[in-house]
Amino acid sequence: MGRYLFTGGKVYTASGRRPFCQAIACVGKRVIAAGSESEVAAMVDDSFERIDLAGRALVPAFTDSHIHLAHYAMSLANVELDGSSGPEEVAARVARAVESARPGSWIVGQGWNKNTWPGGALPDRSYLDAVAQRNPVALFSKDLHSLWVNTAALRIAGIGLDTPNPEGGEIVRDDDNRQATGILKEAATALIRRVIPEPACEAMAAAIEKAQSELHKLGIGAVHNMDGAASFEALQLLRNTGRLKIRVTQSIAKDNLDDAIDLGLSSGFGDEWLRVGPLKAFADGALGSQTAHLLRPYEGNSRNAGLAVASKEEMAELVGKAVLAGISCAIHAIGDRANRDVLDIFESVKAESAQRRLRHRVEHAQLLHPEDVRRFADLGVVASMQPVHILTDIPVAERYWGRRSRWAYAFRSLSKSGAMLAFGSDAPVETPDPIRGIYAAVARKQLDGTPDSGWYPEERMTVEETIRAYTAGAAMASADELTRGTLARGSFADMTILSRDIFSTPAAEILDVRVAATVIAGQFVFREGI
Amino acid sequence: MGRYLFTGGKVYTASGRRPFCQAIACVGKRVIAAGSESEVAAMVDDSFERIDLAGRALVPAFTDSHIHLAHYAMSLANVELDGSSGPEEVAARVARAVESARPGSWIVGQGWNKNTWPGGALPDRSYLDAVAQRNPVALFSKDLHSLWVNTAALRIAGIGLDTPNPEGGEIVRDDDNRQATGILKEAATALIRRVIPEPACEAMAAAIEKAQSELHKLGIGAVHNMDGAASFEALQLLRNTGRLKIRVTQSIAKDNLDDAIDLGLSSGFGDEWLRVGPLKAFADGALGSQTAHLLRPYEGNSRNAGLAVASKEEMAELVGKAVLAGISCAIHAIGDRANRDVLDIFESVKAESAQRRLRHRVEHAQLLHPEDVRRFADLGVVASMQPVHILTDIPVAERYWGRRSRWAYAFRSLSKSGAMLAFGSDAPVETPDPIRGIYAAVARKQLDGTPDSGWYPEERMTVEETIRAYTAGAAMASADELTRGTLARGSFADMTILSRDIFSTPAAEILDVRVAATVIAGQFVFREGI
Ligand SMILES: [Zn+2]
Ligand SMILES: [Zn+2]
Repeated sequence: MGRYLFTGGKVYTASGRRPFCQAIACVGKRVIAAGSESEVAAMVDDSFERIDLAGRALVPAFTDSHIHLAHYAMSLANVELDGSSGPEEVAARVARAVESARPGSWIVGQGWNKNTWPGGALPDRSYLDAVAQRNPVALFSKDLHSLWVNTAALRIAGIGLDTPNPEGGEIVRDDDNRQATGILKEAATALIRRVIPEPACEAMAAAIEKAQSELHKLGIGAVHNMDGAASFEALQLLRNTGRLKIRVTQSIAKDNLDDAIDLGLSSGFGDEWLRVGPLKAFADGALGSQTAHLLRPYEGNSRNAGLAVASKEEMAELVGKAVLAGISCAIHAIGDRANRDVLDIFESVKAESAQRRLRHRVEHAQLLHPEDVRRFADLGVVASMQPVHILTDIPVAERYWGRRSRWAYAFRSLSKSGAMLAFGSDAPVETPDPIRGIYAAVARKQLDGTPDSGWYPEERMTVEETIRAYTAGAAMASADELTRGTLARGSFADMTILSRDIFSTPAAEILDVRVAATVIAGQFVFREGI
Repeated sequence: MGRYLFTGGKVYTASGRRPFCQAIACVGKRVIAAGSESEVAAMVDDSFERIDLAGRALVPAFTDSHIHLAHYAMSLANVELDGSSGPEEVAARVARAVESARPGSWIVGQGWNKNTWPGGALPDRSYLDAVAQRNPVALFSKDLHSLWVNTAALRIAGIGLDTPNPEGGEIVRDDDNRQATGILKEAATALIRRVIPEPACEAMAAAIEKAQSELHKLGIGAVHNMDGAASFEALQLLRNTGRLKIRVTQSIAKDNLDDAIDLGLSSGFGDEWLRVGPLKAFADGALGSQTAHLLRPYEGNSRNAGLAVASKEEMAELVGKAVLAGISCAIHAIGDRANRDVLDIFESVKAESAQRRLRHRVEHAQLLHPEDVRRFADLGVVASMQPVHILTDIPVAERYWGRRSRWAYAFRSLSKSGAMLAFGSDAPVETPDPIRGIYAAVARKQLDGTPDSGWYPEERMTVEETIRAYTAGAAMASADELTRGTLARGSFADMTILSRDIFSTPAAEILDVRVAATVIAGQFVFREGI
C-alpha cells in the first residue's frame, strides 16, 4: 500500500470547516490526515514517501460533471488531421495509424482542410491507397461536409461505376466521369458513414482507457458520463479487468428509463469506481441553433422563442416515473423557459425525491430568469454548468439573448443564493481541461482577453468557488460527498497537484497553470515535474 | 474495526492447498491470517478479541446458490397458520399481526387446514372480523385451494350479494344463500388475490431485512437471488441505507434480458454486497408435475416425456445474445433431455464465453444421462443443485424416473469428474437451512432415516465436499472466488461457526448440528452460545 505525505504547499480540502491547510497524508486508497504540518507529521512515520509541494496547490481531483465519454474517447482514437500541411502529411499520419491497426479495421480521422494547403486542390484516394490497402480509411474534413476515403472503403460501401449520386450529395469522379476519386460531399458521406462499424465493446474500452489517460493529465479523477449503453458496457469491462482508474457516474438515457425500471435498477447502484447515476433527458435545444427554449423570443426574431424538446407534461411524467423508481434526474435545460419548466417539475416531486434521497440536476442552466435563480437552492437542485462555453459563447449570447445575458452563466448569483454548483465541460464539444473552465469562470473573458473587465463581471467566481464546483459540488451532484470531492480523514485519496498556487494566481495567468500530478485512490496516475 | 482471533477449533478454509487449519484472525472486513495456532498467533496482538472455538468447526459462511429472496421474504412476513388448533387460534395469530400492521394494510397468512381441527367445519369471516375490522385479511389454506377472508377484504374485492361465482370457483355463502361467508374456493380465490397489492419497495426491503436475519441464523452469508426486479430494487434500497448485511448475486429474468442489453448492463456490475449475476431462464418444468424434459418417457406413461419450456433453438438464441452482451447464463434444467440440450447450447458458445470470462450454470441438474455427467467439467459449467430436495423427492423420483434415478442428484459422479458444484435450497420451496442440505447430500435419506443405506449411496458426498459446494463452489459460480468462499489472507471475513465439529459428526447426527455464530465482513451478525 502506498504511503504518501504531501507537505510544504497549499492544500485545499474544499471542506467548509477548514478549506485550507498545509499538509496531507494518505495510506492505501484513503486520506489519513489533512491539517497543519505538525498535525499531519504526528500521523506519519518514516515509511511514508515525503513529497515536497514547494508552494504548489494540492486540490481534490477534479470531476468533470458533464462529459460524453464515448464521443470523447472516439474523437481521441481517430487520426487528428488538423494542421496537416497537405495530402502527403495526411497520408503519413494515416500510415502510422495503419501500423497499429488490426488488419481490416477502419481508420477514421478528422480535421483536414484543403484551403490551408498549397494549391488547395481536392485530394484523392491514391494518397491513402499508397499507405492503406487492407484497412478502409475515412477522413472527415474539418467542416465535416466532405469525406476522403481510400479504395478499400469505397469497395465496402459498394460505391462503383454505377452508383448514383444521392440527393443532396456528390460522389466526386475522375475527369472521364467514371471512377470515384475518393471524395464524397455532403449527403454522399452517408454512404460511408453507415458502413463504419460501431466499435465493439473491447475497442470502446481501449478507447476509453486512452481517454482516461488524457483526463488524468488534466487532473481529472472522476466524470459524470452523459453517453449511454455502449460506454457503460465498456466501462464495466474496464472495471472487471482492473483497468478503470477514473471514477464514473453513469447516466441512463431517456430511451432506457423503462429498461432500468423493468430491471429494478436505481441511482446509486454500483461501486466506488462505476455507479449508476441519473436519468439524462432533454428539455430544450441549444443557444447556437436558437433552439434553447426562452420566455421571450430571440433578439431580432419575434417569432422564435426556441422549442421544448418534450412538452412540460411529458417531462413531468418522465421525471415522476423516474423518482418513483428511485432514479434521480439530470435534465438538459439551456433557455430561461426550459429552466423554469424543469424547476417547476422538480418542485412538484420535491417530497417524493426527499423521501428517496434523490438529488436532481439541471444540465447547462445557461440562461435563467432572475426570479428563478434562487429556486435551485430552495429546491436542492444542482446547477450542472460548463464555464468553458463562455470562452466562445459571449458574442453568440449577446447577439441572440441581448441584455438577458446578464443572467447567462449566472455562477455567482447561483452560488450566493446557496445553490449547489457542479462544473464540467461537455467534452468533446469543448476541451475537458478544467484549467480552461476555471479561467472562464474567474475571468469571464474570451481567450483573447476581451472584454477587458469581464463579461457581466458581477457573475465572476473566485478560484476557490470555482474549484469547489469542480470537486465538492460535483461530488454532491452524484451523491458521493461522503467519500469524495473533499479531503479529510477517511476520504478517498483522489488529489490533483497544480504547478503553482492557483489560489493566488492572477486571473490573466490561470491559463498558464499546469497539472503536476494526479493521484487517484492513493496512486499516482499522472506525474510530471514533481 | 473489529479484530478477532478464533482459535482452538477446526478451521475449514475450503482452499485446495490447505483445507484445514487451527486458527484464523481477521481485522475489519478481511481475514489477515489462517493457519496453525502459532502461525496465526504471530500475526495478532492483545488488541484482538480471542474467541475459543472449543473444538467447534469454523467454515466459510454458507452461500445459498439458489434462493427466491422476494418469495422467501414474503413467506416469512405472512402469518404462519400451520399447526393451528382451530379458528380461534388462527384469529389470535391474526390479532397479533394486526397490532403491528399499518391501518388498512393487508394481513396475509397461509397454512390453515380444517381437516386437522375438531369438527372439521369450514370457518367463516366472523372470527377474523372480531380481530380485524380495518385491515383486510386473506388466509390461504395449506393446500392453497381455499382462501379465508374477512369482511374488509370482501368489500375491497367488491364481492357482494350479486357477485356471480367465477367459472371453476365458488364464493361460499350463508344458508339463505345470500351473504358470502368469507371462504372462497379454487378460481374464486383470484377475486381476492388480484386486489392484494404488491408490496412497495420499502415494504419489500423490510421483509428482506427480516429474511436476512433468518438466513444469518442458518449460517448463510451470501445468496444467489433468483427473484427479479422487485427484490433487486429493494436490495439496492437496503444497500444504499446501510442495511444490507448479506452478499447478493442478482439474476436477470429472461423477460428483462433485452432491458439489460439495451442499458449495457452485464454480469459482475455492482459491489461486494450486491452484484448483477446471470440471466435466469427455464429449459423445462419439474419432476413433481412430470414436466421435466426427459430423453425417454416417464415411467408408466409412454406418451409423456415432459416438455421444453422454450425450444432448443430459442434457448440457443437467448444464450447467444446474453453471452455477446457479457451476461452469464443460469438455465433451469431438471430432466436429462433438458440438461443435454442446455449443455449442447453452452458447448456452442464455449469460445465466446471464455473470451468474456463468463461462467454458465445449470440450475437443478436433477437427472442426467450418464454420458452427460462429465460434460459439466469439460465445459466449465457449474452444476447448481439443491440437495435438500432429496429429503422429499426419493419416492417421487423412483415412481416417475424409475431406474434412471441412479443418475438423479449425481453429486459424487459430478464432483469426481471435476465439475464445479454450487449448492442451494430453492427456498421458499424448501427450507434454506444448509444443515438439512448437508445431511441430504451426505446421507441421501429421507428425514425418517430411510432408505437404510442411503438412496443410490454411490452418489453420497463427504461433509467436506458438501460444504465446499456451499462455499468455494458457490463463489466460483458467481465469479467471486477471489474474495469469498474460501478463507485465506485477504479474503472477506465471512465465516460460520458450527456447534460442533461437523467433519467428524456421523451422518445420522448432522441434523443436530446448529449454527453458533455467523460473521460477515468481520462482524457478528448472529451469535448464540459462543
Ligand atoms: Zn452534453
Ligand atoms: Zn428456483
